[in-house]
Amino acid sequence: MTKKFSGIAASNGIAIAKAYLLVDPDLSFDNVAINDVTAEQARFDQAIAASSEDVTAIKEKAAKSLGDAEAQVFEAHLMVLADPEMSGAIKQKIADDKINAEQALKEVTDNYISMFEAMTDNAYMQERAADVRDVTKRILSHLLNVNLPNPALINQPVVLIAKDLTPSDTAQLDRQFVQGILTDLGGRTAHASIMARTLEIPAIVGSDVATSEVCEGDMVIVNGLTGDVIVNPDDQTLADYQQKAADYEAQRAEWSKLKDEPSVSADGQHFVVGANIGAPKDMDAVLENGAEGIGLYRTEFLYMESDHLPTEDEQFEAYKTVVEKMAGKPVTVRTMDIGGDKHLDYWTLPQEENPFLGYRAIRISLDQDEIFRTQLRALIRASVYGELWIMFPMIATLAEFRAARQIYLEERQKLESQGTQVGDIKLGIMVEIPAAAMLADKFAKEVDFFSIGTNDLIGYTMAADRGNDRVSYLYQPYNPSILRLINQVIQAAHQEGKFVAMCGEMAGDPIAVPLLLGMGLDEFSMSAPSILQTRSLMKTLDTKAMATLAQKALDLETNDEVVALVKNAVH
Amino acid sequence: MTKKFSGIAASNGIAIAKAYLLVDPDLSFDNVAINDVTAEQARFDQAIAASSEDVTAIKEKAAKSLGDAEAQVFEAHLMVLADPEMSGAIKQKIADDKINAEQALKEVTDNYISMFEAMTDNAYMQERAADVRDVTKRILSHLLNVNLPNPALINQPVVLIAKDLTPSDTAQLDRQFVQGILTDLGGRTAHASIMARTLEIPAIVGSDVATSEVCEGDMVIVNGLTGDVIVNPDDQTLADYQQKAADYEAQRAEWSKLKDEPSVSADGQHFVVGANIGAPKDMDAVLENGAEGIGLYRTEFLYMESDHLPTEDEQFEAYKTVVEKMAGKPVTVRTMDIGGDKHLDYWTLPQEENPFLGYRAIRISLDQDEIFRTQLRALIRASVYGELWIMFPMIATLAEFRAARQIYLEERQKLESQGTQVGDIKLGIMVEIPAAAMLADKFAKEVDFFSIGTNDLIGYTMAADRGNDRVSYLYQPYNPSILRLINQVIQAAHQEGKFVAMCGEMAGDPIAVPLLLGMGLDEFSMSAPSILQTRSLMKTLDTKAMATLAQKALDLETNDEVVALVKNAVH
Repeated sequence: MTKKFSGIAASNGIAIAKAYLLVDPDLSFDNVAINDVTAEQARFDQAIAASSEDVTAIKEKAAKSLGDAEAQVFEAHLMVLADPEMSGAIKQKIADDKINAEQALKEVTDNYISMFEAMTDNAYMQERAADVRDVTKRILSHLLNVNLPNPALINQPVVLIAKDLTPSDTAQLDRQFVQGILTDLGGRTAHASIMARTLEIPAIVGSDVATSEVCEGDMVIVNGLTGDVIVNPDDQTLADYQQKAADYEAQRAEWSKLKDEPSVSADGQHFVVGANIGAPKDMDAVLENGAEGIGLYRTEFLYMESDHLPTEDEQFEAYKTVVEKMAGKPVTVRTMDIGGDKHLDYWTLPQEENPFLGYRAIRISLDQDEIFRTQLRALIRASVYGELWIMFPMIATLAEFRAARQIYLEERQKLESQGTQVGDIKLGIMVEIPAAAMLADKFAKEVDFFSIGTNDLIGYTMAADRGNDRVSYLYQPYNPSILRLINQVIQAAHQEGKFVAMCGEMAGDPIAVPLLLGMGLDEFSMSAPSILQTRSLMKTLDTKAMATLAQKALDLETNDEVVALVKNAVH
Repeated sequence: MTKKFSGIAASNGIAIAKAYLLVDPDLSFDNVAINDVTAEQARFDQAIAASSEDVTAIKEKAAKSLGDAEAQVFEAHLMVLADPEMSGAIKQKIADDKINAEQALKEVTDNYISMFEAMTDNAYMQERAADVRDVTKRILSHLLNVNLPNPALINQPVVLIAKDLTPSDTAQLDRQFVQGILTDLGGRTAHASIMARTLEIPAIVGSDVATSEVCEGDMVIVNGLTGDVIVNPDDQTLADYQQKAADYEAQRAEWSKLKDEPSVSADGQHFVVGANIGAPKDMDAVLENGAEGIGLYRTEFLYMESDHLPTEDEQFEAYKTVVEKMAGKPVTVRTMDIGGDKHLDYWTLPQEENPFLGYRAIRISLDQDEIFRTQLRALIRASVYGELWIMFPMIATLAEFRAARQIYLEERQKLESQGTQVGDIKLGIMVEIPAAAMLADKFAKEVDFFSIGTNDLIGYTMAADRGNDRVSYLYQPYNPSILRLINQVIQAAHQEGKFVAMCGEMAGDPIAVPLLLGMGLDEFSMSAPSILQTRSLMKTLDTKAMATLAQKALDLETNDEVVALVKNAVH
């Protein structure tokens, strides 16, 4: 039977494939008395062996697609599986208590887990608890002979269906086989959505019902352009969507011709379309999609993917690589934005009631300035290899910007006095806190450029955590309150002849682009796969007409009204 | 030796008295083997008896000064002390293990505590764990013969010194003896500060060093007007401050003459100076201080001080009492603002990563509208007894206001069709989310009034949780970014001929009042003890001169510059 429902369109494209449910199966069992201890112990040994085989395969896959660091968690799983003390205790329990392997497994591992978890102030032990839990689930699945989903082992085209995708789930996905993604939870800025756009996998999130409405093996159409899902379509519908998918691919091919062209509006005005990156490894996609600059280099990943505070030289190498690859095109590097929801294993930050309103980003950098100085030195040294700009995240007051600039100038001076060559560096701020937007005219006199970070700016302006499903309806990028703040920042920058970029999700959003172009935004920085589509859209937009459209939008009352206005005028 | 240090001036006035340290004493002890079991058990019994005596006294004091609800926690403590099972187990352990009572007490109560705490999803059991911990501390203090501070039992004038004050600490304070408060932690909007202002006790918070620099019995001067602390002053200094304290009291007496006068500026413009309240019991202070209205009635206390969702009739009685006591002066009632840091024992809300950016206030009311409808019915019924206005907290979008108004209109219609009499009610919103401030011109067309909630507005605009010491430096009420938002709201309201109030801390702040008066704010609502001082200040301010001053402030760059400007012009 054909079923239709919809969700939030999170990554463009149309996927048509069989459903693969990434949902935990029923692993319940009865406590059974046994007679044949040897047979039961053998059954347990087989489950251990099969589990080790799974994990080894997953680990190899993860190491290949994501690097050794990401694969380490599976190494830890293998160590748990090979631990003679744990398996010994389970087999002993089978013998002593004459119970089935499932029950013995549960009793022994529960013990381990609660022991590890009791050490609440030890992050390492907390992780060990998670490892034992994961491994127990896997052994149990073999004992019960049910299929535990192994996304790493998918070897045919599928639409992946899940309640939500964690970073560890997505680490295992193979772009070759995962044609589409469909989840119950999440919004456009959830981890799963960002990952899907980066990998260019069509995706729909926040459907509420995907895992309950779709069965393993159902044929599924995921229309990532509209948010529509069709399960088990009739032949005509299937054919229609195959055509639509082909049309979209043709359009993509058309876009790809724009790779080496500049980004210009219909009336010939030039805008910069740049890319957001997290690491040098993202540069392939940046170059393939013809980015005119890096509008946001998120350096916190350097810290998060390391097991120690990255040294000045380690950082220097990363920055130099990116700057060199961009060959003179500007690379805007954001100093580290740790805190909030970004944590480091090796550097414990305080527990906070409201981490998004807490000790993070520049607030840490100014407070613990040795770490900040190390990063700035690495950046200043890398600046001679191309065009490097530096921006500070989470600036709320002019005093903070001045303090950060002072530290920058001191380190620059020190390097110069040591004879180190340094380049011309533009210094700017992220505008992502409403206070900075409200005082943009004053900031514009002192900074070289602004970069508007819409994800956080919207969150703070609406007082809503976008990761919280109960209030995600307040993540309204087109609400006139947000548009007014953004417009205010752009006009204030231009009043002082300063450059203004945007590096939040909005910059690559087809509803927002006409408005932002109308407001005169100078740079649109986005995930690399959105670049060519945006460049193509810009070619159809007249700046004067868009300026009029933006003025109209600024005077509307709700998010929905703005969407309707733009759709009516542009699409 | 005289010592001087300073902190944050949190409640006006000058206190001079001996220090009383509300700091936990050293309760460490050795594990000692004993021979005389009977003697040790008797020692334990005596400690139990002495503890019961303490708690009974504290309980009576709390019941008298704060009501029975607050005293209930001590009832729970008495039950723990009287529990034969627990004391039996301890005495048994003394006999069995031949150990001292301290050690036996610790072993048995640790067991209880971890048992209760393990039930993590049971709030009741979590509280029982806290009760056992408190009681254990008290018994131990008697066993060790050290003095556990008993703030409820203070019977001579003191300056209370603590790291911080919890609501349960302040519940025990006697205004008659506690002359001043001095803490290491906290800011102007911390619980201790608000409580001190309400009780009119001079206070300094956030001194960092109070508990380490001051010893029990030291003579302490707390200058709540400036934030200066002097420990063991010389005779001359003591005499000077006694004079200053007398001067301040004289000024207070002068202010009190303004009780029945209207609030007018030097050039004769009238402003409304109102009071913020949390319950009908706050009305005495409101009437004593001559409030011209209630600018904020925080109804969540009705929910928080009850053990069930308050019924329509319970709410009706509370609202009616307040409205009647104000005898026709407007009472602005805020619908419940639960969530964030305000929780109910009997109604579990979801755990959130960032509760201040989460499911709270109107977001809950719109989502679970039966609770909201009950409150609205109680309010509509109470409106016939005087002048009642309703405002919705945490409004971010027009859609939310329209939805809330729709529910209000439905309930009003239902009551009318049942023949219930209803009054004229003005409907407004709290402006405490930046998005609402940015769109104030649109909101002003639909609401009857605004009330600017500066505590949250500053927090969101600065992206800083004011309760988090690491970022409390960003709580900058005079930052031009904040002043611009406030000014924008006031001008937008007046453009549509609408009334605009402020009910955050700023409304009673002597630095802010000149600026707000210059911007044309209509109502200043504050804690009752600040009313007369504000009325007195207003008499010295010329609206035209303040309008010019406000314009200057809006064009400055930092919080400090604004403070200097106002101090220079006004004080």
